[in-house]
Amino acid sequence: MTVRSFGFLMFPDFEELDLVGPWEMATMWRALAGGPRCLAVAAQPGVIRCAKGLGVVADHGFDDCPALDYLLVPGGAGTRVAMQDGPTLEFLRRQAAGARAVLSVCTGSIVLAAAGLLDGRAATTHWKAIPRLRAYPAVTLREERWVRDGTIWTSAGVSAGIDLLLAFIAAEDGEEAASAAQAGAEYYPDGRIYRSATRRPEAPSYVGDLT
Amino acid sequence: MTVRSFGFLMFPDFEELDLVGPWEMATMWRALAGGPRCLAVAAQPGVIRCAKGLGVVADHGFDDCPALDYLLVPGGAGTRVAMQDGPTLEFLRRQAAGARAVLSVCTGSIVLAAAGLLDGRAATTHWKAIPRLRAYPAVTLREERWVRDGTIWTSAGVSAGIDLLLAFIAAEDGEEAASAAQAGAEYYPDGRIYRSATRRPEAPSYVGDLT
Repeated sequence: MTVRSFGFLMFPDFEELDLVGPWEMATMWRALAGGPRCLAVAAQPGVIRCAKGLGVVADHGFDDCPALDYLLVPGGAGTRVAMQDGPTLEFLRRQAAGARAVLSVCTGSIVLAAAGLLDGRAATTHWKAIPRLRAYPAVTLREERWVRDGTIWTSAGVSAGIDLLLAFIAAEDGEEAASAAQAGAEYYPDGRIYRSATRRPEAPSYVGDLT
Repeated sequence: MTVRSFGFLMFPDFEELDLVGPWEMATMWRALAGGPRCLAVAAQPGVIRCAKGLGVVADHGFDDCPALDYLLVPGGAGTRVAMQDGPTLEFLRRQAAGARAVLSVCTGSIVLAAAGLLDGRAATTHWKAIPRLRAYPAVTLREERWVRDGTIWTSAGVSAGIDLLLAFIAAEDGEEAASAAQAGAEYYPDGRIYRSATRRPEAPSYVGDLT
């Protein structure tokens, strides 16, 4: 059987965990349950500096990136530039046309929206970025941890990409594969909510009261 | 007030999320609640290849790394080499002597044990590595999501480092700071457990039955 390929898009100032959370789940899927090969892709190969200062390496550029079965777009401060970058949007449209699924984490959905890939779709984003996604009238915003609309999967902010990936693995290869990735990454969160004296009225409805 | 420093140790074949999960929480703490400056440190500065293939950048070497307030050691396949590497163990002992706290994720605790930093302490590790930590008779193994014993904080596997960091932030700077980091990273996991037809009898007792 041909090994599938899963591309992870990098651009300057993407948010670290948006990409590495899903990367960990996808590479566990690969290691433990026959999942796809995972590739780090950017406009050009080389070092990318993330939004919170970590340096990471893109091993492929847009030109040498193979046709992808799956493609994930992270969010972060750098989306404000990426969403206006012609080569990035063209790469997304080209890969999306042949991919089995396109996924985004956090404000990665704004980049997908800018590429026109969310037209007529339901999607979500980081709770702080909800107004930015609402600015696209062709997109139906849902305040959920993650949203699937056909071949497009979007998640809420940063850490939500982990939940997204496990759901995606279960949909693609079955619950047993998702269980293997979850156990490998020991992803059994303690579920503790740290309280604030300040209300966060913009917080997503799926979370409930954070105070 | 002097800005605190938080070092994140890198070595070949460390596990990606072990480091990046805590990195994300700590850099959110920095960005939103006056937390420490975060530094990526390895034996020498430069690119490190992780256990699941991601390339990352160490910005500091052991020689130019400042005295750290906090130090985190990730796990991964590379711990089998790191735990026998003299300069790594010497760096850990030297930094630990002056640090306010030392943390580990997953099999990072095996490296701490090898450095003698867990002697007389309670600690935990990845569920698959419990026999490896039991091999140190001076360490009291606890099957918990994370364990604090004085200035030493250890967590279970891979993703457990996220829970560890939020608890650590709350202990260091209060629940408000942990709440800010949690909200910034939108860390409100959906808590779904994917089931397997195969029993996982080695799974940690805090998780319960995984089938």
